[in-house]
Amino acid sequence: MATKNFKLVIEYDGSAYCGWQRQPNGPTIQARIEEALERMTRSDIKLIGSGRTDAGVHALGQCANFTCDTAIDAQAFRNGLNSLLPGDIVIRSCEEVHAGFHARFDVQSKTYRYRILNSPLPAAIGRQYQWWIRTPLDVAAMCEAAGYLIGEKDFKAFEAAGSPRAHTIRHVMRAEIRTEDESHIIFEIQAQGFLRYMVRNITGTLVQVGKGQMAPREVLVILNARDRAQAGMTAPARGLCLIEVFY
Amino acid sequence: MATKNFKLVIEYDGSAYCGWQRQPNGPTIQARIEEALERMTRSDIKLIGSGRTDAGVHALGQCANFTCDTAIDAQAFRNGLNSLLPGDIVIRSCEEVHAGFHARFDVQSKTYRYRILNSPLPAAIGRQYQWWIRTPLDVAAMCEAAGYLIGEKDFKAFEAAGSPRAHTIRHVMRAEIRTEDESHIIFEIQAQGFLRYMVRNITGTLVQVGKGQMAPREVLVILNARDRAQAGMTAPARGLCLIEVFY
Repeated sequence: MATKNFKLVIEYDGSAYCGWQRQPNGPTIQARIEEALERMTRSDIKLIGSGRTDAGVHALGQCANFTCDTAIDAQAFRNGLNSLLPGDIVIRSCEEVHAGFHARFDVQSKTYRYRILNSPLPAAIGRQYQWWIRTPLDVAAMCEAAGYLIGEKDFKAFEAAGSPRAHTIRHVMRAEIRTEDESHIIFEIQAQGFLRYMVRNITGTLVQVGKGQMAPREVLVILNARDRAQAGMTAPARGLCLIEVFY
Repeated sequence: MATKNFKLVIEYDGSAYCGWQRQPNGPTIQARIEEALERMTRSDIKLIGSGRTDAGVHALGQCANFTCDTAIDAQAFRNGLNSLLPGDIVIRSCEEVHAGFHARFDVQSKTYRYRILNSPLPAAIGRQYQWWIRTPLDVAAMCEAAGYLIGEKDFKAFEAAGSPRAHTIRHVMRAEIRTEDESHIIFEIQAQGFLRYMVRNITGTLVQVGKGQMAPREVLVILNARDRAQAGMTAPARGLCLIEVFY
């Protein structure tokens, strides 16, 4: 049998997981899929994800690849995995790709979506997928603030405190605030790469702008200062979803 | 202090509960709210619901009332309860009503909504709120079948097997099949009263019609036969939501 390389597109509800990446304590999405692959192939398989997602973060289109000496074809992998995986992880597609494809190194860009429920009352249904903000938010101010994020910029101010990354310049291609209905505000951001907690820290800052606690142009000041302490709080994980990975 | 009567409108995600009604084993929505009321008022309070919902069934607009000798006003009850209740139960409104109001006896009608995901793949996100059907469903046939439910009819065929209810005639005012987007089918039904499992048994039957396993007009035959065995399977609880109670 020849070695094949398979690319997976994965949807998951991250509520019950300690994030994407396998770790010694607590369930992760990577570990669940690797276990299912091992049951199907009876061999040790290492899944390469496009990148981590934090505990509680969801995905509609996480990507990963794995190589395997197998007679099993792509569709049989998709169906087999879906029958073995719990309901909160779904393989949306599986395709055979060229031997050189690497789900992490080959990423061109990713899109994340953050969902805010902006209403006087919280919601019971769907609460796992949004951040409830009671104070009415100024959407126009948030739109303006989001605009300042676009371009190749140093996002050090929006990186998780204590992250040791030397290179903090990232290229944001799209940063859009929109309303979904009368009570939901969506923030969508596409970039060639993200720093740890970057989307959640940006979202927390945009919410501060929406509350009128910060002028939209302050985002530029924060970016230039490269100081985490000036940016807003880290928005909760449950509102965040990895929508698509582009290769 | 005078005795006041309060009406609650309640949203809940029923996933973690053994249904609305208090019972000795397992958590229920009624018990959770009664516990919170007891903490607020330091007295034993009996909540009267508009009716039961089964384990795993959700609500956007369940109604209930309780009487209490208290100085607390309606808004303070709403806010206090929401701060004490877990995130999967939300009091949407609380208002003082006349002494005679009874949440069960005064019901004029109720609307239930059943949500079907009709797509080749299941969904991880939102799976708690829908029933996944892989086979493409014939929506037009389901619409026709739903139409036969409207009116004052004997729904004994759609009652849970073994239910001891003598009177099985109910008045269905509205029974509508519609599509929400390319993959979701919604069944909404309003009636003056429902038998146990009635909406879920009707939904199971409509899905059989949608799959082409039954002609739409068979619904009339089933109604006339008054025979549970001829109707379709009981649709899973998670797709069902009590939308509104009318008084």
